[in-house]
Formats: sequence, structure tokens, C-alpha cells
Amino acid sequence: MNIIRAARAVLHVTDLEKSKAFYEALGFVETYADDHAVYYRGLEEHVHHSLVLKKKRRPAVECISFKVMSEEDLDHLADLYERAGFSVIWIEKGKEMGMGRTLRVQDLSGLPIEFFAEMESKERLLQRYDLYKGAKVQRIDHFNCQVTDVKQVAHFFQETLGFKCSEYTVDDSENLWAIWLHRKPNVHDIAIMNGKGPRLHHIGFWVKDAMNIIDACDILAALGYGDQIERGPGRHGLSNAFFLYLRDPDGHRIELYNGDYLTSDPDFKPIRWHLNDSMRQTFWGHAAPDSWFEEASEVLDVKTGKKIPLQEPKLQQKKPEFMI
Amino acid sequence: MNIIRAARAVLHVTDLEKSKAFYEALGFVETYADDHAVYYRGLEEHVHHSLVLKKKRRPAVECISFKVMSEEDLDHLADLYERAGFSVIWIEKGKEMGMGRTLRVQDLSGLPIEFFAEMESKERLLQRYDLYKGAKVQRIDHFNCQVTDVKQVAHFFQETLGFKCSEYTVDDSENLWAIWLHRKPNVHDIAIMNGKGPRLHHIGFWVKDAMNIIDACDILAALGYGDQIERGPGRHGLSNAFFLYLRDPDGHRIELYNGDYLTSDPDFKPIRWHLNDSMRQTFWGHAAPDSWFEEASEVLDVKTGKKIPLQEPKLQQKKPEFMI
Amino acid sequence: MNIIRAARAVLHVTDLEKSKAFYEALGFVETYADDHAVYYRGLEEHVHHSLVLKKKRRPAVECISFKVMSEEDLDHLADLYERAGFSVIWIEKGKEMGMGRTLRVQDLSGLPIEFFAEMESKERLLQRYDLYKGAKVQRIDHFNCQVTDVKQVAHFFQETLGFKCSEYTVDDSENLWAIWLHRKPNVHDIAIMNGKGPRLHHIGFWVKDAMNIIDACDILAALGYGDQIERGPGRHGLSNAFFLYLRDPDGHRIELYNGDYLTSDPDFKPIRWHLNDSMRQTFWGHAAPDSWFEEASEVLDVKTGKKIPLQEPKLQQKKPEFMI
Amino acid sequence: MNIIRAARAVLHVTDLEKSKAFYEALGFVETYADDHAVYYRGLEEHVHHSLVLKKKRRPAVECISFKVMSEEDLDHLADLYERAGFSVIWIEKGKEMGMGRTLRVQDLSGLPIEFFAEMESKERLLQRYDLYKGAKVQRIDHFNCQVTDVKQVAHFFQETLGFKCSEYTVDDSENLWAIWLHRKPNVHDIAIMNGKGPRLHHIGFWVKDAMNIIDACDILAALGYGDQIERGPGRHGLSNAFFLYLRDPDGHRIELYNGDYLTSDPDFKPIRWHLNDSMRQTFWGHAAPDSWFEEASEVLDVKTGKKIPLQEPKLQQKKPEFMI
Repeated sequence: MNIIRAARAVLHVTDLEKSKAFYEALGFVETYADDHAVYYRGLEEHVHHSLVLKKKRRPAVECISFKVMSEEDLDHLADLYERAGFSVIWIEKGKEMGMGRTLRVQDLSGLPIEFFAEMESKERLLQRYDLYKGAKVQRIDHFNCQVTDVKQVAHFFQETLGFKCSEYTVDDSENLWAIWLHRKPNVHDIAIMNGKGPRLHHIGFWVKDAMNIIDACDILAALGYGDQIERGPGRHGLSNAFFLYLRDPDGHRIELYNGDYLTSDPDFKPIRWHLNDSMRQTFWGHAAPDSWFEEASEVLDVKTGKKIPLQEPKLQQKKPEFMI
Repeated sequence: MNIIRAARAVLHVTDLEKSKAFYEALGFVETYADDHAVYYRGLEEHVHHSLVLKKKRRPAVECISFKVMSEEDLDHLADLYERAGFSVIWIEKGKEMGMGRTLRVQDLSGLPIEFFAEMESKERLLQRYDLYKGAKVQRIDHFNCQVTDVKQVAHFFQETLGFKCSEYTVDDSENLWAIWLHRKPNVHDIAIMNGKGPRLHHIGFWVKDAMNIIDACDILAALGYGDQIERGPGRHGLSNAFFLYLRDPDGHRIELYNGDYLTSDPDFKPIRWHLNDSMRQTFWGHAAPDSWFEEASEVLDVKTGKKIPLQEPKLQQKKPEFMI
Repeated sequence: MNIIRAARAVLHVTDLEKSKAFYEALGFVETYADDHAVYYRGLEEHVHHSLVLKKKRRPAVECISFKVMSEEDLDHLADLYERAGFSVIWIEKGKEMGMGRTLRVQDLSGLPIEFFAEMESKERLLQRYDLYKGAKVQRIDHFNCQVTDVKQVAHFFQETLGFKCSEYTVDDSENLWAIWLHRKPNVHDIAIMNGKGPRLHHIGFWVKDAMNIIDACDILAALGYGDQIERGPGRHGLSNAFFLYLRDPDGHRIELYNGDYLTSDPDFKPIRWHLNDSMRQTFWGHAAPDSWFEEASEVLDVKTGKKIPLQEPKLQQKKPEFMI
Repeated sequence: MNIIRAARAVLHVTDLEKSKAFYEALGFVETYADDHAVYYRGLEEHVHHSLVLKKKRRPAVECISFKVMSEEDLDHLADLYERAGFSVIWIEKGKEMGMGRTLRVQDLSGLPIEFFAEMESKERLLQRYDLYKGAKVQRIDHFNCQVTDVKQVAHFFQETLGFKCSEYTVDDSENLWAIWLHRKPNVHDIAIMNGKGPRLHHIGFWVKDAMNIIDACDILAALGYGDQIERGPGRHGLSNAFFLYLRDPDGHRIELYNGDYLTSDPDFKPIRWHLNDSMRQTFWGHAAPDSWFEEASEVLDVKTGKKIPLQEPKLQQKKPEFMI
């Protein structure tokens, strides 16, 4: 199972024009748009898209998606999920715009996860600096999900899917409260946090440097999006990244992210944080707002397209002590 | 009365070693220190100091100080204040380290204000980049004071002392709630805000750019000063400056400040803000913490050295509506 | 004579469309344009323009211009120049777009210098971050001129016009080779260098920070303007500014400039550099290209509109030794 | 053969004190030093070192070194090189400070290449921002080598060692002139250029952002190292990285490097540049100095420790046309 990296997300939004205005302000490049959907890529991306917005009646997450090395990897993944008793569907090449054959599964956490090996190529605009604007989003970096049983989900991602842990968080009783897991060698392709779930907490996009995030705040505020800056800018203790959290017009959360580190060494020792360490979330000690812990995007059933019912998390502590 | 600029502050601190550790972390250059006091200058400053910390039993502000063009200006200022019925004292040259003759007055607001024309020269370290550290503080920029009658104090600074207004804030009834006044042609040498007074709200120091403020947050947090970051980093709506507010070990507030604009033109029209405009304080819409409005440094009587009693402000609204 | 600051330049260009493409790439804001001329201002400027390009058959400098405090200052300046035997002309209010009454003189160096007190107001776009692009030019900062007799011209600007010296350069024989003179309290409103003259060497525009200059290089290169980057980016030893020199389509030289210092103190001691000090021009030791010393824009007679003939400079050394 | 990444270099230097002053100015962290050698790591590195300087009579490169996944990978590599007829030596664990068992081979190009799986752990200082100084070097990124037959060497690295190509350069006759090869998924762990060889052209170290490189120039110049800035700062066309090239006191070349891109996708198409494209080296069009093409560090025989004789390259063109 050679999973390469977090690769795309498909979000449902209720007002495509409003959403487009927001994501264009962030500097996403539009690959294609019609009345029903829009396909975005970052300036560095050589592929058709990393973010799809589909116009629907209710906001939701259709899937989060990982790129794998080959078509054979897809077949192996399908076998593996089916043998483990999970729902699996195939979408034939071309049915989803720009996509080869894709596999979708309902994960043991209830998250709708997609895998694919092939996506159409598009012109990479990395050196078209004249087209840079907003936050100058470079590429998708990671997903962060809230699930009810972090330990169980983390075990599956590590033991079955081959993800590696870079950092993790424990509560007072040494329970695993959150974990950062990667396939590409930076801090994460997916983070899993204890919370009402299954939900997508945010999608992280890589930006060039910290100043691009400061500039993005100024530009977003000038455009009237100040209310949609939810948290930051700041430095994460966990991951060391410089960050900004935004809420799109439907409340989907986007993180602008830069400055984590290389995790390629097999002898790199995962970094342990305590949930109540005030430098864990924001290295400078700033508390996150309640909304950051409480609100997240609901996800859909890969077969029925209906919302997956939410359940309460196994671990009782829902946010750091200094915030309660 | 040719007042040039905000030039120095004299603060009383209770633990000189703790204070020194903090200000050195910010990158101030020590000109002189002994067991009773320490004298700091910024990297750009060609004079003996812009900040004095004196070890005393209680934290307080001994004076805030403006540089004037000549000794004659001092005599004129003394006349003017005396004729207007204010307390005036002279300190002979050399009695205050590095200083020529200085004049101190108790302002109509009760603030202890100092004027001087002469200060000893010191090596300017602007291009000693090898000595830059912390926030790389360049120079003193301004004072911000809380007074009980903004309109009255502003009138005196403008009409009698020749300060000019760059920006101002009004409340719902169009009362002047705060005002930014300058002699050097940037946004301010002194700001005056409605509040329990007289108090010094903060001293603003100029830094090179926004990234120096981000770097300062990382460095301060690494040194264990995270709790002393009170507000920011962020962009002010009013003044357009990028800012960070810190509290020193005695609670004195320091602002790191960069990026306002040139105000030299006589036809520049002061910019009007409404107190309840959420972009006024932080252009990105972030609210300031309550402490930022409520806490400030008490000031001393220039003659007796005793604390000036605090009085309630004339205008009832003490902070923006969205914060109440 | 209360001169406030360097305020505008009027350049002749041969291909208005080509010039507009270039200056718009730099982020200038167009106040007005027609087939004959275009008027630009920086994002911080509250006035009609700071740069005028007029379409003409040959590239030249029509004038460099200083803003003064009042109409009376203009009358005093006219008297002063006429008494000293210089050519003086008046242009009535409104004849030059956006301008009040203006005075033009042919300086003792032969430079066409303009003074005015009144310019039409325009919306200041400082906080319209959504409109920032290219180098995000904020405002005009200074002129740099080549003249044949630096000592004589410097004397006139200092003694008669009230400019102050911040820094200067001497050659091996202690002759004044170049001088930086200011009215607003940063390093300069005008610099005067030894060289074939009279010529305008460059116009300096203030940008927000060093990263804006790096970004400008990337953007200009992406747009095909790489050949027009003549020198830099780098740090000046003299002035301490971070800089980039560009040549516009007619060869007029523009400097992007940030990061000098406050020069308001009357006891600030001008900084002396030796011409052959390799850190003077570029603090990092990089040599300027020959073109930077040899090429500059020719200037026009304020009365006839004809080119002022060039003369050889009094001091023989035309560039630093390490470049010869 | 699971090679992970470029991991360390061992350089011979003639004056350890002079070298230490230089590398400390760059912000390297000293893990260990005595009279014979010094071991440096970057702020992000969790291992003993990435750069070793050994005091010797003549400057040279003892080896460039790659980390592999396991001890078995070392055995496979030894087999492979021996079967192909190359010199191979083993160094037992602990003989080289901080190192497990290491394998050294004389490559077909003549380069002394080392492989190892184990290195002692050391405290990672990534979040000790209070210790950041100079260029704030984060970690080793890549080697760049000059060889006489690029095509042959590139073939071996790709086909036998499993490196992948991100970008490459061809001359007028479509000969492969240079190639960028990676194991970790950014632009390169090793670049191979046509030139007199075998020589190590430079070692690239990762820094946090472009501003850190600008700051490094200021700091190095303030410390008197201006002459050792050989090229840059600038933006590479090839790789898109922001760069600075420095020469250490023995002439070994160090690159500060930031801002390339993710190359993990199997369908990423290598980017082709023509040698004479003026944007290839420096996106802004600046030419590199002759020294950059002509000078490089000589390398040693892994068995005898003697210098490997230099040979002329197969391709005649030694630098881009616009530089000749």
C-alpha cells in the first residue's frame, strides 16, 4: 500500500459564488468552474486540482482523498477494506472531473476516504509570480479530523495503511488524545483528534512563508473577510508551523500552514505533548477560541450520500484545561 | 516651542534583574547599568538612552520625556507651564545620567512630562547586525496615555505645544474618545485615550518590520515569556502599524510597532474612526483583551515623587461595544 | 522657506503603453491617464500623484518637484532664485493636472526644480491591501542627481534652502564627492553625486519592507522585466536602506527603497564615508555595475524645454576605485 | 537500496579557529569540538551532526554522505559497488564520532561517497528560538558535484541507486549538462554538473525563509565576511529556491537554500532547462560570477586519502553562453 500524500478534498457548499469569491481571495487557481462546481489547485500543483467545491443544499464533506503510487495499490486497498468489513465504492475514470479510477471507503471512524492513482496534469504556475495573490496558496498539505476513538483510528492508519507518527498528544491519564500521521516526510498528511465525530476539522494548505500569512490577513480584512479569521496568525508548538485558521462561507475550516520540518528519518522519535501544555497549540501561549474545538464539518456516507450521524468522543476532555 | 519627538521614559521597577532579563530579550542595548538603574537605547539611537529603569519599591512612571530643539525652548516651556499654573521643576545637567538640563512638569492631565534639549551621544549600532537580537528594537517611537478628559488634554497639546493630529476616535455622541498626536512626521509621539487616569498605557518602540515582531514572539516564548505577550501580533486599523503588546515583569506595557506612514503634509486630513468600528483597533477584527483597556502604569508627582491619585474618565464608554 | 519633502517628478517617455505596463507592474496606482500622459501615486499617498509620465519624442526629465508649506513660501523662493540670477517661471493653478500654482527654476546645477504648495487630494489606498500588487509602492521618497560641482550645489541646498545633511562621501583628497540632504526627517529628499551633469540619476520610492523588494524581483522576472533589474537587491551601507534599482523602458532609473532611519535630532552627526569604502554602496560588498555610474536621465530647460547640455564633473574620480 | 537523504559532509580545513568563527556566524550548532575537528548540526536536526570540519594541511572533501534505512541497505550497497568494480571501505561503528558503521566508496565519477544507517541522537533545537543566530541554518539539504561525464553518473544514480530526476539542463546539442536528483521528495539530494572533476561544488543547507538569507547577508557583512558572499541573494529559476552562495575560509562553497517544492508524485514530469536560458540560474536574470563555474573543492581517495586527479569534462561548454 504505497500511499503518497493527502491529495484533494471534495466539499459541498451552498452558495458557489460566495465560496468562489472567498477561495479566490486566498489565491487558489481555478482549473475549471461551471454552475455546479469549481476545481482549484495551488500555484505549485502540476495536477488538475486539490480542492473541489460542489454546489449542494447543505454544507458537508463528500470525501478527503489520498494519492497512491499505482492502480495496483488501489486494488490492494479495496481488498483490505472489504476484508475488514468496510463499505467500498469505485468511481470509474472520468466520472469525477480530472480523475482516474477512484476508490471510496467509509473508514472505521466513519470518515469518507478516497484513494486514487491518476489525476490529469495541468500547468504548474510556481514561477508565474505575476499570478500570485491573496495567501498565494502553494499546495494541499494535510487533513485534520475529529473522531470518537483516536487510538483505534490511529492504529489502523499506522499498522494497516503505513502512516508514521511525527507528534502526538496525551491527556492526564496518558490516553492518546490526538496524533499527527504522515506519508510524505513532513509532519502530517492527516491528524486525528478526539472530538464529536466523524468530522473534518480542517484542510491545511501550504503557503510560502509566514509573511504570506500576515499579508493574507491584511488582504482578507480589506475585502471584508475579517470575521472569517477564526484563529491566529500564530506559531504552533506542535508541528512548529506558522498558521492561520479561516472559516469559509459555509463554515468549512481552512488552515494556511508553513514551516514544519523533515520527518524522513526512521529513527526520528515522535514528539509527545500533554494536552494541557499551553505551548502545544500556540507556542506563544495564545488560547484557541471555543469554536475551534467545537465546530467542524460533517461528513457523508460514500454509498448513500447522507450525513453520518455524530457520536460523542471516548475521551471526556474536549479541550485543554486552561480553556475550560 | 520646537518639540522634536518622544525621547525617553523613566520607569520604576521592583526587580532590576528580572526586568533586565526581559528587556535584553527584546534586544535593547545597555548603555549603562548598576545596582540602582539601567539605561537602554535602541540599535538606531545615537544618544545615551531612550528607556531608564530605576529599582524602587513600587512600579510607577517617573516621567515621559520629549526632546526639544534648544535650551531656549526649555525656558519658553517653563514659562508657559508656570503661567498656566502647573508644577514645574528643573533638574540640573548631569544629575540624571547622560542628560543635560531637564524640565519636568505635571501636565493638566496629571501626567509627569519632561523636556530636554541635550543628551550625551553614544555609538549608533544600526549596522552592527551581529548585535541584533530579540525584537531588534530600533528606537523609541511614542507614548500612549490614559487621561480623564481627552478633549482638554488634546487641546493643550495641539494649541499650546504645537502637536498635530493624524488620527482620532469618537464615541456614539461624537465625543473625542482618543487622539493620536505627532511632532515628528509619523502617526504619533503621543496618543491620548479616555480612561481612568492619569496613567501611562504603553511605550511604543519602533522595530524594522513585521517579521521582526513574529520572530520576537518565537524568541520570547522560547525564553518563557509567553505569558507576557498580552495582545497581537496584529495590524492596527488606526495607524496601520503592525504591533505586539508585551507586559514587562512589573506590568509596564511595551508596544513593538512598525509600518505607519508619513504625516508631514500640512494638508493631510486626520483620519476619523468610530470607537465601535471593529477594524479600528485590529484591522483583522481581533478584539483586544480586557486587560488592555483596564490596566496601565500609574504615574508620579514630579515634585513629591508620590503617586498621582486616579480619577474616573469623563466619557462613560471604556472600551468598544463589541468587547463589552 | 519651509520645504516639506520631495513630492513629484515629471518624466518624458517615448512609448506610453510600454511605460504604463512597467509602472503598473511595480504597483503604482493610476490616478488619471489619457493618450498624452499618465499620473501615478503610491498606495500611501493622499494626493493626486507623485509621478507623471508625458508622451514625448525623446526621454527626458521635465522637472523634479518639492512640496512647500504655503503659497507664501513659493513667493519667497521665487524672489530668492531671481535675486540669485536664476531662470524662474510660474505655471498657473490647474494648468498642470492636479496642481496648484507651481514655480519652476533652473538650479545653479542646471537641474529643473519645481516647488508647489497645493495638490488635489485623492483617496489614500493604504489599507486597500486587496489592491496591492508588484512592489506595492507606498510613496515617493527622494531624488538622486548627478551634478558637476557637488560642493557648490550642496552649499546652496543647505545654506539657502535649509536642507540638512545626513550622510556624505569624500574622495582621497577629502573633496565632497556626494551628499545626502533631507527636509523630512529620514536620510534624504535629494542626494547629489559627482558626475556628468546635470542629470537625474534616479527617483527613489518607498516600499513597505525588504520582502516586498524580493517579491518585486520575482514578479518583474515573471513578466519578462528581468533585464530591467540593474542593481540589487541589496543593503546600502550609506543610508542603511534595502534597495533595488530598475530601468524603465526609456532608461529612467527607479529605486525601490526601504529601511533608512530617523534624522530629526539637531545633534545627529552626519555620517562620513570614503568613496573607496567597499561597504558604502552595498553593505555586503557587491559592486554596482558600470551603467549605474555612467547612465542617467538628461534634464530640460524650464523655459525652452530643450535639453541642458552635459558637462564633465569637477572631481575626476567617477566611481569607486575597486570598480575601475 | 533504500537511501533516505543527503546526510553529512566531511571537509578538511586548514585553520579550525577561522572556520569555526565562520560557521558559527552562519548559526550552526556545535555538537562537539576539540583541537582536531568540529561537529555541527542545524537547528532542526535530531542527530549528532551534518557537517564535520577536520583540521588538515590542505583543504579537501573527505566524503559526502547519505543516510540509508537499515544496516542491510549498507551491505547491499557494498555488494553492488564491489560487483561493479569500485573501491569500498568500511569504518567500524564509533570510529567516526557519533557514527554507526559506515561504508565509503569511490564512485564512478571519482567522488568519495559514504553511506550509513545509524547516527547518534542529539537534542533537536528547532523551538529554541533564543539560540537562533546568523542564517539560522535548519538542516543539510543537498550536495552539488562537478563531474566529467554527467550522463554516465546520472544513469548510475537513477538506475542503480534509485534517485529520481526533478529538473535537468541540456546544451545546444541536447546533451545532458546537469541534473538534479532526489531521494527525499524535494528538488534534490544531489545535483551533478558538467565540469572539471570530480569536485564538490557546494553543500546546500536549508534555511527557514528568504528573509533569513537577507538577514544573514547583513550579519556576515557586519562581521567582516562580505568578501565571502560569492553570489546572490537571488531566486534560482531551476529549483525555484531562494539562495545565497558563500565561500568558507578555505574556499569550500556553502549554499543557503529555501523554497523549492514537493516532488513526491510519480507522475511529476522533470523540468527541462536549456543551459543558455538566462533565467535558469537566476530567475531575475543576474549572471553568476566566473568563480562560481570555475572553482570547487577537490576530493580525496577513500582508501589512500590522497587527492583524486582532476580531469576535463566531456562537454565543452563550461558555462552559459551569456557569461562567456
